[in-house]
This record gives sequence, structure tokens and C-alpha cells, in this order.
Amino acid sequence: MPHPRSYGLEAACPVSRSLTVLGRRWTLLLLREAFLGKTRFAEFSRIGIPSDVLAARLQALVDEGLFERRPYQSDGERARDEYVLTDAGRSTLPIIAALAAWGDEHVPSAAAEPMRFLDGEDGRPLTIGFTDGAGRAVEASDVLITR
Amino acid sequence: MPHPRSYGLEAACPVSRSLTVLGRRWTLLLLREAFLGKTRFAEFSRIGIPSDVLAARLQALVDEGLFERRPYQSDGERARDEYVLTDAGRSTLPIIAALAAWGDEHVPSAAAEPMRFLDGEDGRPLTIGFTDGAGRAVEASDVLITR
Repeated sequence: MPHPRSYGLEAACPVSRSLTVLGRRWTLLLLREAFLGKTRFAEFSRIGIPSDVLAARLQALVDEGLFERRPYQSDGERARDEYVLTDAGRSTLPIIAALAAWGDEHVPSAAAEPMRFLDGEDGRPLTIGFTDGAGRAVEASDVLITR
Repeated sequence: MPHPRSYGLEAACPVSRSLTVLGRRWTLLLLREAFLGKTRFAEFSRIGIPSDVLAARLQALVDEGLFERRPYQSDGERARDEYVLTDAGRSTLPIIAALAAWGDEHVPSAAAEPMRFLDGEDGRPLTIGFTDGAGRAVEASDVLITR
């Protein structure tokens, strides 16, 4: 687990602490690619990230405990590493889903393709949102934030 | 509404499109401050953001339609602007909540202070997560992402 650091002033704030790990450019897109099944340097590089930045981001994701490095070797090629989501990495999925939902609604694009979140058991479509202790959904516009 | 742009390659991806608006350093922390009731330049500047960067980020948030600029004047002072969340700005709350939940669990800090999300009607504590069409919660580890 990473050391607590601040992004902005405050180690007190969990949003700020998350952003110390997730807030650098490309990091959330690399996590998205990992959720879409990508594991290899060449696959990640297709999102347009420069190779030196990709190498640094992958190393940081390993150091932060979000990716695990595993060796693999394709026939007739040299041994390489691939990068697999850890449990901590997998638990960023609500962040990715909340960003996707907001982008779908507020940043339209003629090139838009849907990104869907499905129940792994039965394929039911899922949405991200607030629920109370009884599991009932509450609209974001009705939510207060306190600290 | 902003023009569609890419962050990385893909205008197709809603995560990528969200990050074109929300992915710059400080932007999500300024939204967090706005949810906590801050509206004024001097209040926002307390998070440690340099003044020139703050001015640029506030202008961008207005241009993107997340903040609305409103004039105000305190007794004996010159007229100033304050910055108030629009509906599009308010709808980023699930992103903030998902970041907070992840930071609470995965980036511990001795200085941590809880950030809570409450039902505005009755003060019930709320959590952010995946639900199916019937409102039932589904664990993130059971969710598949497709496109």
C-alpha cells in the first residue's frame, strides 16, 4: 500500500488521497484498459500514451499495488511481463463506472460507443449510484456531503 | 456543453470524454470544495492551488458548464464573483463519492477524516455502488465491463 501523501493540501481527505494514486494523466485510462482485458505493454500503448510514460505508469501501478506483474512468453519470442489487476485495482471499478456515466450524459460525441456494466452472474445491466442501507437508490441531486 | 475531445485516443469512450473535462489536476478537488459549500476564490485557494492555476481552472469549469459565475458584494468591499455548481456540476457527485470510498479503503492515513454522503431528506447514510434494475446492490468484484 502506498504511503499517505497529499494532492493539494490534505491527507485528511479520501478524495485527495485517491487522487495521489489515480490522478495522474493516463492512469485511469490504463485501469479501464485492464478492465477490458488488456494485459500487455503493446496493448496498453494503443491508447496513445508515449512508451516512456507508459513504462513509468505501469511501474507506479505495480508499486501502488493496483497491478501485479506476471511473466509470460509467446512462442518464439523473448520473455515479457504482463500486468494484471489486483483486488485493489479491481476495486476502482465504481470510479470508472461513475466517470463513464457522467461522460455519457454530459460530454456527448458523434463517435460515442456505449460502455456497459453487467452482472457477472447473469448479465443483467447495472448502474452506478447511491443507495441507502436498505439498498434503495437515491438520486445524486438529493445527496448531501459532509465531513 | 463542451466539444467532444479525446484524452488519449478515443472520443468513443465515455471515461476518456469525462477526463477531458475532469482529468486536469485540481479540478476534482475544486468540485469537492463546491460540494462542501465553498463558492469564493479565497475559499478555493485554501486547498493549496496557485492563484493563476485556480483562475484558469475556475474559468474552465464555467466554460464547461459545471460552475455558474454569480456576482456578490460584501459590505465595504468591491464586487466579486462567486462560483456555484450547475446541475451538470452536481451530477459529478457519484465520481467524488467513488473516489472517497476507494481512498478510505485503499489509501489509509493517520490524518484521515471521514467524508460522508447523506440522504438530503432524512440524513440516512448512503453508499456508492452498482445496482441492478430492481435496485439490488451488486459487488464491484462481480461486475463485468463491456463495450
